[in-house]
Amino acid sequence: MSASSPRQLVVVGGNAAGMSAASKARRVDPAAKIIVVERGRYVSYGACGIPYLVAGYIENPEDLLTYPLTEFTTNRRIEVLLEHEALCLDTGAARVEVSGTVDQRITWLDYDALVLATGARASRFSGGPDLAGVFTVRTLDDGIAMLRFLEQGRPSIATVVGAGPLGLEMAEALATRGLRVTVLDALPRILPGFSDAAAGVVLSEMRDRGVECLTGEQVLNCEGDEHVSAVVTPSRTIPADMVVMAAGARPCSELACAAGLRLGPSGAISVDQEMRTSVDQVYAAGDCATVTHLVSRREVYIPRATTANKQGRVAGENAAGGRARLPGVLGSTVFKFFDLEVGRVGLNAAEAREAGFDAASASIRGRSRASYYPGARPVDVTLTADASTGRLLGAEMTGAEIAKRLDVVAAAIHAGQSCDDLAHLDMSYAPPFAPVWDPVVQAALEMHKGLRRPVQSPGA
Amino acid sequence: MSASSPRQLVVVGGNAAGMSAASKARRVDPAAKIIVVERGRYVSYGACGIPYLVAGYIENPEDLLTYPLTEFTTNRRIEVLLEHEALCLDTGAARVEVSGTVDQRITWLDYDALVLATGARASRFSGGPDLAGVFTVRTLDDGIAMLRFLEQGRPSIATVVGAGPLGLEMAEALATRGLRVTVLDALPRILPGFSDAAAGVVLSEMRDRGVECLTGEQVLNCEGDEHVSAVVTPSRTIPADMVVMAAGARPCSELACAAGLRLGPSGAISVDQEMRTSVDQVYAAGDCATVTHLVSRREVYIPRATTANKQGRVAGENAAGGRARLPGVLGSTVFKFFDLEVGRVGLNAAEAREAGFDAASASIRGRSRASYYPGARPVDVTLTADASTGRLLGAEMTGAEIAKRLDVVAAAIHAGQSCDDLAHLDMSYAPPFAPVWDPVVQAALEMHKGLRRPVQSPGA
Repeated sequence: MSASSPRQLVVVGGNAAGMSAASKARRVDPAAKIIVVERGRYVSYGACGIPYLVAGYIENPEDLLTYPLTEFTTNRRIEVLLEHEALCLDTGAARVEVSGTVDQRITWLDYDALVLATGARASRFSGGPDLAGVFTVRTLDDGIAMLRFLEQGRPSIATVVGAGPLGLEMAEALATRGLRVTVLDALPRILPGFSDAAAGVVLSEMRDRGVECLTGEQVLNCEGDEHVSAVVTPSRTIPADMVVMAAGARPCSELACAAGLRLGPSGAISVDQEMRTSVDQVYAAGDCATVTHLVSRREVYIPRATTANKQGRVAGENAAGGRARLPGVLGSTVFKFFDLEVGRVGLNAAEAREAGFDAASASIRGRSRASYYPGARPVDVTLTADASTGRLLGAEMTGAEIAKRLDVVAAAIHAGQSCDDLAHLDMSYAPPFAPVWDPVVQAALEMHKGLRRPVQSPGA
Repeated sequence: MSASSPRQLVVVGGNAAGMSAASKARRVDPAAKIIVVERGRYVSYGACGIPYLVAGYIENPEDLLTYPLTEFTTNRRIEVLLEHEALCLDTGAARVEVSGTVDQRITWLDYDALVLATGARASRFSGGPDLAGVFTVRTLDDGIAMLRFLEQGRPSIATVVGAGPLGLEMAEALATRGLRVTVLDALPRILPGFSDAAAGVVLSEMRDRGVECLTGEQVLNCEGDEHVSAVVTPSRTIPADMVVMAAGARPCSELACAAGLRLGPSGAISVDQEMRTSVDQVYAAGDCATVTHLVSRREVYIPRATTANKQGRVAGENAAGGRARLPGVLGSTVFKFFDLEVGRVGLNAAEAREAGFDAASASIRGRSRASYYPGARPVDVTLTADASTGRLLGAEMTGAEIAKRLDVVAAAIHAGQSCDDLAHLDMSYAPPFAPVWDPVVQAALEMHKGLRRPVQSPGA
C-alpha cells in the first residue's frame, strides 16, 4: 500500500509459536519480508508426539512434521534459516545477530518487528560428564536420537527423571518397548499440581504396568564410562542403560534477558495479552513467554503447545501491524498413562485459596458411559468453586474419556459460570458416550450441595 | 414437623422422570407417603440402551435396570404399583383413578401433589392388523420381545421405519445381528434437523455397512398372516420378517388433556421451569412434558432421557414442598451409527433465523486426535452464530469422538458466549485426545472469520 519498502519481520524459533507467528504475519501482510531463525533442522513439528514416536505408535519421525518445509518457504514465502542461532538482540538498533550453527557465519538481521519464540529447554543435571544414553524430550532430534539408541544400543533398563505428565508418557513409551522402567522424582509425591487421589490412581496404574516409582530421590548425577550405566541419588545408585530427563523445562530467555527485556515468573519473557514484551516492536510467544491465568488473573508460566500456537498467532498478527489479543489460559493439562487419563483445568483448592478465593471442592466417581454399555469405566471428578458464589474455579479428572469432559468444565470456567449453571447444562447423551447423568453434571450437583453445607464440603 | 398427617405424593409413570421425582421427593420430605403408578413390569431403566440390548452388546435385559426394585421400595420407601394404570385425573378432588392392568381392580388415590411422568409412545401404523414381528422401541418389554423374536423367529430381513437417530441405532443393531436391513422414511431425506452434509455422511456409512435406505416412502401398512411378511408403501411392497417402528414418539398426555391441563407443542403437557402444569399441585416431567429451549426461549417438545431425569428431580423437589427449577435445554442430541458419531446442540441456521436471529454458519473438517496419532479420524463441525454479535447459537458435528466436543460448545452456548470466546478457549491437549487446534476451536476461528466477511460466510 505505502511506497516505502516492505516491512521486515524476524522470528526467532521455528516451532509452534514461531511458525504460527510467521504464518499469521504472512496472511496479515502479504508484502512483508519474513525471516525465521531456527536452531534445529526442522520447523513446526508436534513435539508432544515424541513419547508416542519412541513408543513405536508412530512410524516415521517425519510424521510429526505439521507441513513439509516447502509449505512455509514456497507457499507462504517465509525465509527459513535452519541451523541458525540468534546470538544477540540489539533493540536500540532493531537488529538481531544470527550465526549458522554449522558454518558459524555471522550476520545481523534488521527488523521492523521481532517475535521471540525461543521455546524452553529441559532441565539437566547440574554437573557431570555428557554420557551417551542420556536424553531430553524437547526436539524432534531428541526423539530420533532415542529411537536410534533403542535400536542400536538395545538398552534394557531405563530411568525416567521426573514424575510429571511428560515423565509418565515417556515411562509408558519405554515400558511399551519392553524396557524395565524406573521413574524418579525429587519431590515426595508424583504429579505436583494434582491431588493425592490422582497421584494414587496413577501409582496404582504404575504398579499394574510394572513401572517402578521412587519419590523423594533427587538425581545428583549419572555414572558411566562414555555410556551411562547408573543414576546416582543421595541414598542410592540405580543401574540404568538409558536415562530420560523429564524434570521440567526452563524458558530460553537469555537473549531477551541480555537485551534488557522484562522477565516474569520462572524467568520467562513477560508479555501482555497482545504478546508485547517490555520493548517496543518486540513480541514473545510460546514456551519462552509468560501468559495470563484467567482465573487468578496473574501472569504465570505454563508452557503448552496449544498456548504456543495461540500466542504465536497473536504475536504474528500484531507484529504484522494487525490487532489481536489472547485473553489468557486456564492451565489446561491432560495426559494418558497407558489406559488411564489424567487432567486438570483452572485452579485446585489450594491454588484458589492462595489466589484469594474462598475455595471449596467436591468429588464424585462416575462412569464414562452408561454402566451397561461395553467399555464403561470409572471417571473421578473433583470440582473447585468459590464457596460463597459457586463460581467454578477448577477441575481435576482421572479415568477414561476425560479429556473433552475437562474441556466442558473449561468452557464453563472460561465463561464465569457457577456449579449450578454446570449442573443444568444440557449435555448430549447416548449410552456409548455417557451415563444419563454425565460425571461432569454429577460433580456439579455434588459441588452445589457442598456450597449449602460448606463445613461438610471436602477439601481438594 | 407439623402435627398433620404426612404429605401424599402420587407419581404417574415409573421410568426416568417418575422415579427421579419420587426419589428426590423422598430426600426433600422424609415423612411423605410416595406412591408410583407404573403401567409396565419395570421401573427406572435405561430405555436408550434397548438398541444395544438388541444388538447383543449387553448380556441381560436386567442390566438396563438402574437399580433393583427394592432400592426404591425398601431403601427409599417408595410404594410402587407395577402393572397399574392411571385412568382418570380429578384435579378438583385432587385424586387419581388407578386400575390394575392384570386384576382390573380400581382404586382412587388422593394426592397433595401429583407428578405426571407418563412418557411418550411410539408412532404406529394408523390401521391394519396387529401382526407378530412388528415392534416399537420404548419399553424394556419391547426390547425383551425383540430379543425373543430374534432368537425364536429367526428373521432374516428387517425394515426399520424412521431414519432418525433411533431408527439408525436399531438399523445398526439388526445389521450387527446379521439381518438384511432396510430403513424407510416418509421424508425426502434422512435425519430431519441435521444438515444435508451430515445426512450425506450417514448415508455413505449406511452404504458401507450394507444397510439400505429408502426415503420419500410413507409406510401405509404391514402385510402378513399373523406374522408380518411385508411393509407396504404407496409405490411398493417391501418384504420383511421383522418391522421396527422408530418414526418418532408422541407424548402420553391423554390423562392430562382429559383433566383440562394446558397442552403445549406436539400436544405435550405444558410446564414452566418449575415443572408446574396449568393446575395447582400438578407437575409434569419427562417425555410427556414440554421444556424451555434456552436459545429460542420458546416452549418446545424435545423428549430426552437427560431432560426427563432433570425435570423429574425438579418436579419431585417442588412437589415435596421444595423450590427448584430447570432453566431449559439446548436440544442436545448425539447418536452413533457403527463407528460414526453424529450430534447437534442448540439451533441450526434455519431454526435460528426462524427464531429471529441473524444467523450465519461456518464449517470445518478437523481430526479427532493429532494427525500422526493412531486412530485419528475426521471430525466435521458446523457452528451457527448470530452474525452481528457473534453469539453462539448452535453446533452440529459428525465423525469420531464428537460427543463431549458437542458438550464443550453446549457449555459455551449455555453461557451466552461468542465464537470469539470459544476460539480463545484453553482446551486440554495431548496427541491421543485432540490436535493442537481442536476442531471446536478451529470451527470457532472459522466462524469468527465469517462474521467479519458476512457475505462470504457459508450457510448451513
